[in-house]
Amino acid sequence: MLRTKIREILDRDSAGDDVLVQGWVKTRRSSRNVTFLQINDGSTLKDLQVVADESLSNFADADSLTTGCSVSISGQLVDSPGKGQRFEIHAKSLEVMGLADPDTYPLQKKRHTVEFLREIAHLRPRTNTFGAMARVRNTLAFAIHRFFQERGFLFLQAPMITASDAEGAGAMFRVTTLDLDQLPIKNGAADSAEDFFGEPTFLTVSGQLEAEIFALALSDVYTFGPTFRAENSNTSRHLAEFWMVEPEVAFCELDGLTELAEDFLKYIFTYVLDHCPEDLAFFNQWYDESVISTLEGIASSSFERMTYTEAVDILQRSGEKFEFPVHWGTDLQSEHERYLTEKHIGRPVIVTDYPKEIKAFYMRLSDDGKTVRAMDVLVPRIGEIIGGSQREERKDILLERMRESGLDEQNYWWYLDLRSYGTVPHAGFGLGFERTVQFATGMPNIRDVSPFPRTPKSAGF
Amino acid sequence: MLRTKIREILDRDSAGDDVLVQGWVKTRRSSRNVTFLQINDGSTLKDLQVVADESLSNFADADSLTTGCSVSISGQLVDSPGKGQRFEIHAKSLEVMGLADPDTYPLQKKRHTVEFLREIAHLRPRTNTFGAMARVRNTLAFAIHRFFQERGFLFLQAPMITASDAEGAGAMFRVTTLDLDQLPIKNGAADSAEDFFGEPTFLTVSGQLEAEIFALALSDVYTFGPTFRAENSNTSRHLAEFWMVEPEVAFCELDGLTELAEDFLKYIFTYVLDHCPEDLAFFNQWYDESVISTLEGIASSSFERMTYTEAVDILQRSGEKFEFPVHWGTDLQSEHERYLTEKHIGRPVIVTDYPKEIKAFYMRLSDDGKTVRAMDVLVPRIGEIIGGSQREERKDILLERMRESGLDEQNYWWYLDLRSYGTVPHAGFGLGFERTVQFATGMPNIRDVSPFPRTPKSAGF
Repeated sequence: MLRTKIREILDRDSAGDDVLVQGWVKTRRSSRNVTFLQINDGSTLKDLQVVADESLSNFADADSLTTGCSVSISGQLVDSPGKGQRFEIHAKSLEVMGLADPDTYPLQKKRHTVEFLREIAHLRPRTNTFGAMARVRNTLAFAIHRFFQERGFLFLQAPMITASDAEGAGAMFRVTTLDLDQLPIKNGAADSAEDFFGEPTFLTVSGQLEAEIFALALSDVYTFGPTFRAENSNTSRHLAEFWMVEPEVAFCELDGLTELAEDFLKYIFTYVLDHCPEDLAFFNQWYDESVISTLEGIASSSFERMTYTEAVDILQRSGEKFEFPVHWGTDLQSEHERYLTEKHIGRPVIVTDYPKEIKAFYMRLSDDGKTVRAMDVLVPRIGEIIGGSQREERKDILLERMRESGLDEQNYWWYLDLRSYGTVPHAGFGLGFERTVQFATGMPNIRDVSPFPRTPKSAGF
Repeated sequence: MLRTKIREILDRDSAGDDVLVQGWVKTRRSSRNVTFLQINDGSTLKDLQVVADESLSNFADADSLTTGCSVSISGQLVDSPGKGQRFEIHAKSLEVMGLADPDTYPLQKKRHTVEFLREIAHLRPRTNTFGAMARVRNTLAFAIHRFFQERGFLFLQAPMITASDAEGAGAMFRVTTLDLDQLPIKNGAADSAEDFFGEPTFLTVSGQLEAEIFALALSDVYTFGPTFRAENSNTSRHLAEFWMVEPEVAFCELDGLTELAEDFLKYIFTYVLDHCPEDLAFFNQWYDESVISTLEGIASSSFERMTYTEAVDILQRSGEKFEFPVHWGTDLQSEHERYLTEKHIGRPVIVTDYPKEIKAFYMRLSDDGKTVRAMDVLVPRIGEIIGGSQREERKDILLERMRESGLDEQNYWWYLDLRSYGTVPHAGFGLGFERTVQFATGMPNIRDVSPFPRTPKSAGF
């Protein structure tokens, strides 16, 4: 008999058939000559109840199973007389595949702290929380691909190893094959000519500049892959390694980009609401009771637009006591962003046209000479979830902005070439994937939405 | 008017409507008072013909456009009287967005060598070859996700930065934030305690071991992301950075894995045949005339199975003169693999049960004590395209194999834990994505299927 996944069994219209189920024991409860096993195989949050009795030749084995043991069970699917489940299996045969000594197995039938579970990242996917996390993460990732594929965007794999400093966006990890214990030295410094690539190389902080190359040939592209920050930030919102989604769109100006960002967020959150109702209900119950209502709010509401100048005006007249005072020219803090989206508007807000001094050199300068065509999408509970901009497609102005930013134009020869040959208006944004999963699940710490989080002093598993 | 992509225009049933097209000029041909522009926007291999005449106020501009210029054109879609295209546009207005000085623009109307195009990787996506490549790559990548999603596999993002040496599978890149010019030294060696993660870290060579963690909790998972090899291999088949697909399946033995691999290859190649007929025809015409027939052959034929022992016997009795002689116990070379699949069988072959000495420690030992439950999928033209195995799920035997392989079990404490607690039979395989794209397009050099190839001494763009 072929294995059937528990998700498929629980989705059936009726009981009656014999099935083969394989999974891990969540709990066992024995009662006289009957033992009840809750089995999970990861296909769904729900366990399947198995009823085993003395008709089994190895009933004694079944009756001594503990949390974490792996089993293979065949039997008849029947309507369950007990409450809490619709079906159960009456076991006709039961094979114990692997034991899990209850004296040493760290996952017992109790609630463990997320801090403890991080220490056993190889076992935490077996818990309800991290099983649900894996399913939500998978669903959001596939929703991202589907959204862009349905619109004819091409998935581009941007390089991880780069010799350029992208946008000066953050501290970078060095990638090297030099033997650090026998470092070749030339003129008092490490001799990069001896290194694998013949020059210093780093892990990428963004695939944007490479995505622009492809957008200016193929119109609509997106990257979805790892990016890195070597920042010594031990916070609940920072990882040294995380996945980022970066669409880049030719023949698109800022208004088109805000529409794309709104459509995108609505699509992926609607998709996860439709495909992971049980997992989201779990997070809503145990971690943040506003998870589902916030996602539904985003999926159904139209996003407000305002300029940075309007936002500053609203904040200054709000009468709120902010930790950081607001002036035109300063970047908005999380407290300001949350005030705008949560209190002032009550739904997502897209803030546009920021002062050029607080934004990157590649953002398109407006006619006022003071602002750039940047946008941030702000959502309740976390503030900024997406940042993007129309790109500066005019070579002379781009060169001026690079000089103002202290960048060496020699390093950007190919980026400038894109403006020399067939330049067009184009725009793009970035979405941090782990922060999006954090938002969709309500997990307080980003270490608990990444399978194997990399943070300062921590690269285990 | 909203922009319409050329692919959508060419798919229409009939002409008549006004459309707005935006793209880049491939070629211009002028004839008396009319100019014909071939426009491409990357949505398809095909160009759209635009006819502009003196009714345009800026006809002189249109009549002087050169290859690479970007334009925005509105006009009526009409049936084309010329041959080579079904529709064309009669321009009512034409805006020149960006010029491309023909004296310096490197891409002119002629065939460029792939070697030259690698030097201008920022412009090569504008050529027919690399546009087609981007579309085929995108289609294969999405087909991979679809295949696994349809079967309920969860997409897992394996870590890029790792403190462990995976499987001893290859040379690794070191990842560090230490200042190589001011290296902190302790006891005569680089002081890793000062490094970002507090220990030496590397770029991953495989996500398999982490995928096993998730398979032993959630049953069916797959990774699809970058992996790295710091090998100084300057060949047409090696990249220092490439994407890999690695499914890992619990409650699955070797037979189930061979079925999965066969279904998988048939699915993704059928998908690309269905979705990229024009791009594949292009590669078939210009690069390798066996591309389409080979893909169709894989999609429609049932894969042969044989053991390594049978394969060696066939090779020894073949009467072929091989560069490398074949003996039981040696690894099969590409020439042997190709003989088996191309000449002896004439369709894909899955070779199983290799000698344990030539395979990795984690592969499941057979009862004969000599072979492991490994498999390689061999296809015509390249030989091995997939390698995989059933994993050793028995802790005592795994420990023995690790000791034989000279591995320090302390470093694998969590991998061993998976066998201590609820171990189950499981299996998985790996597919190199770039080699698959190379196979599907017939490109001789792997540098030409990666958007920004990383090879020794080369990390440009």
